[in-house]
Amino acid sequence: MNHGVILNVLGGLLRFLGVIMVVPLLVALYYGDSLYPFLAAVIITGLTGILLSYKYKSTDEWKARDGFAIVAFGWLAAAIFGSIPFMLDGFSPINAIFESMSGFTTTGATILLDIESHSKSILFWRNMTQWIGGMGIIMLFIAILPKLGVAGRQLFRAEAPGPTEDKIKPRIRETAKILWMVYLFISIIEVTALVLAKMSIYDAVTHTFTTMACGGFSPYSNSIAAFNSPLIEGIITFFMFVAGANFALHYRTLYTDNQSFLKDDEFKFYSLVIVVATLILTFSLWSDMGETILTAFRYAIFQVVSITTTTGFATVDFNLWSDSGKIVLLAVMFVGGCAGSTSGGIKIVRFFLLLKYAQRALFKSIHPRAVKPIKLNGKTVPDDVMQAIVSFVVIYFMIFALSTGLLSLLGMDIISSLTSSIVTLGNIGPGFGMVGPMASFDVVPFVGKLVLIANMWIGRLEVFTVIVMLTPEFWKR
Amino acid sequence: MNHGVILNVLGGLLRFLGVIMVVPLLVALYYGDSLYPFLAAVIITGLTGILLSYKYKSTDEWKARDGFAIVAFGWLAAAIFGSIPFMLDGFSPINAIFESMSGFTTTGATILLDIESHSKSILFWRNMTQWIGGMGIIMLFIAILPKLGVAGRQLFRAEAPGPTEDKIKPRIRETAKILWMVYLFISIIEVTALVLAKMSIYDAVTHTFTTMACGGFSPYSNSIAAFNSPLIEGIITFFMFVAGANFALHYRTLYTDNQSFLKDDEFKFYSLVIVVATLILTFSLWSDMGETILTAFRYAIFQVVSITTTTGFATVDFNLWSDSGKIVLLAVMFVGGCAGSTSGGIKIVRFFLLLKYAQRALFKSIHPRAVKPIKLNGKTVPDDVMQAIVSFVVIYFMIFALSTGLLSLLGMDIISSLTSSIVTLGNIGPGFGMVGPMASFDVVPFVGKLVLIANMWIGRLEVFTVIVMLTPEFWKR
Repeated sequence: MNHGVILNVLGGLLRFLGVIMVVPLLVALYYGDSLYPFLAAVIITGLTGILLSYKYKSTDEWKARDGFAIVAFGWLAAAIFGSIPFMLDGFSPINAIFESMSGFTTTGATILLDIESHSKSILFWRNMTQWIGGMGIIMLFIAILPKLGVAGRQLFRAEAPGPTEDKIKPRIRETAKILWMVYLFISIIEVTALVLAKMSIYDAVTHTFTTMACGGFSPYSNSIAAFNSPLIEGIITFFMFVAGANFALHYRTLYTDNQSFLKDDEFKFYSLVIVVATLILTFSLWSDMGETILTAFRYAIFQVVSITTTTGFATVDFNLWSDSGKIVLLAVMFVGGCAGSTSGGIKIVRFFLLLKYAQRALFKSIHPRAVKPIKLNGKTVPDDVMQAIVSFVVIYFMIFALSTGLLSLLGMDIISSLTSSIVTLGNIGPGFGMVGPMASFDVVPFVGKLVLIANMWIGRLEVFTVIVMLTPEFWKR
Repeated sequence: MNHGVILNVLGGLLRFLGVIMVVPLLVALYYGDSLYPFLAAVIITGLTGILLSYKYKSTDEWKARDGFAIVAFGWLAAAIFGSIPFMLDGFSPINAIFESMSGFTTTGATILLDIESHSKSILFWRNMTQWIGGMGIIMLFIAILPKLGVAGRQLFRAEAPGPTEDKIKPRIRETAKILWMVYLFISIIEVTALVLAKMSIYDAVTHTFTTMACGGFSPYSNSIAAFNSPLIEGIITFFMFVAGANFALHYRTLYTDNQSFLKDDEFKFYSLVIVVATLILTFSLWSDMGETILTAFRYAIFQVVSITTTTGFATVDFNLWSDSGKIVLLAVMFVGGCAGSTSGGIKIVRFFLLLKYAQRALFKSIHPRAVKPIKLNGKTVPDDVMQAIVSFVVIYFMIFALSTGLLSLLGMDIISSLTSSIVTLGNIGPGFGMVGPMASFDVVPFVGKLVLIANMWIGRLEVFTVIVMLTPEFWKR
């Protein structure tokens, strides 16, 4: 470990975050809200950043573990410094950090009870953290600040979602820039669409922040149900679906080959999962809940897309649905969106490849000597990628089991323990029971909140980046 | 597929089962129960067997898939023909087959409501099916009938639990014979111990049948709670623990090296899981349920061993425990006992190796070029074994998810759907909710019972043997 490098880069990151926080400060100025929370946040974050980069100097010697440490601690620092405006708005420290971590990691789980009682600028910042976290704060940092060089690739990998790297450009900085530009571009389209559907600009921007990030925060307690508009639901469903797909694929579709989607195994499987889950859920809502087929479909497609993409918006309190409906949502909670998207969860491509892996084992049990490589988009998947996928899933479920066990020992019931673990680890948002879509995570005991904060952090960085720091190997000289 | 071979061997198996059924016939004779259910079963099963082996002749041409088909259909046939006495005792056909499948697969889930209302000979047969299924009916067949030769190894593999083959002797018939002798030997010790603890011979034999098989049927509705004796609980706990360990290890301990246990990675991990789960459960029962530490420990160790070994006996209605206690049991439901034991579940060794696999991936993310083989008992585990383990777990969870979804669509609540799926797939027995330890599976709807019967069958044969038959490859010429 090279402390100098790590603290130097963290310093740069905090200065950068301080600058970002000027945006909600301007929003507060515009709406006449109290400026103090944001002014203090900008100053504390910026000064800490300046002090760190002044005191510690970077060198050219980088090791893989330095990259892990920068990304892991960088996200932790963003969550902690990003919580300053919430603390100064009156949140308790644990609640402020919970909300900020839930923001940056695009989880969307909230400890707020009466969301509307908070100022527009605070809620703006809350949603903006999701937009920054969605495409990745480190990636934004790489895209904008040029000095990281080769080391940037390590940081990129430690933050990027999915088991494989999608090389758009040979230089990582250009890749990061392109992905952020595509993200910004689609976000602008969504804002426009929502404004055309008669949303206010404030609502359109804040909801775009959290749709495009697969985040799920809303400035309204009733989430998207507050608008009660099929058109708005349709627009948001579409953009959640887009945000849950691979942004490298969006880039290729826009610039090189507009048939890219049809050739992508993961995208096809992603669409299939959503169609099948929507059909089953429509059936369940129609048969068990007495909805008309049309209403059942309207609720089903919105909720399936919202949960599969790990956004977590709600148009209805699905906590009140029959258990067969809940099971459908529970199943897609484990799946998640596509690699290279802003979604969380285990990710479609990992499931797709694990299924192919199992299929091959069945084939081999009949033809023991057959050689059958596993393919994705026509290309053989290397063994070490499969190993990483399997290890990811094993560690993911271990953390899930551990978290569920801890929460139940703290007195939470099975369903609430299970779902609050998976919705934080998968960066989804609302669960069932105590943590339903119209409820608040404020009821979770203090230690439970710490567990959930850790889950969100570990889940957003896809397990390895954080967990590797728990191995003794990591700390050896 | 070679239909001749398959039907010929199935014929032999049914003749063999017909002969086995003479035992409960003698028990019925002794207790003066109605002989008719067993007489009819012996005649129908035996005659079907004779007809099949007369009509179809075996050849020497065997393929891997013939072995799968024989084992899969052999177990299905055993469950169906083994249910004849239940049908003639007044069970509905679906209930009779459920109970018989639950018996042979050593699941221990029962559809009976008032167990004591049935005759001693019927309950004897019910428990005896578990003892036969525990070590394996095919293995018994291989051990006793000499004519299978080389093909026996294929059958052995398709039935034996665990990812690796434990070669005790070079010839499979001798291995099968030794394992069955060790099984018989330990069973005789348990009967003796229980009789010394003041159980009647009938109770001692029937409970030994289901302890040694990790089965869990009891002739009493209150299961082991009926005896209310710490001594009996202690004896049964010990023998469940023994039955959940590898019988090849028992053989080596008895005949070659009495330190074998201490050198076995799986056995050590198995003991660790039980100790840790018992401690957590003791804490939960003490803090949440207001039990004294001693009572909490008494309940905890019995229930943890019962569920980890997938036996499913109960000394208390754990359905009434707090959720933290239930979570501990739920966790061990997924684990199961050791490879080469009579237990079900995923098996300790698979978890152990998956954990080592994940640990290696963490190591490799720090040292990307390091070569680090995965070892079990000091020997490198081949890649294809790891692949089979991963594929097993993937398919296992897919079936679990599918089954849970189907049951919830049939109107069962989440907890009952989840646990009835895992307790049948893992051959455990009682779950939570509608299917608790003092309840009956009779409440499950008809289609749900079919799903659970399939789960038990698929689970006992460790997924591949049955699932491979669903691939188109299997049916190709």
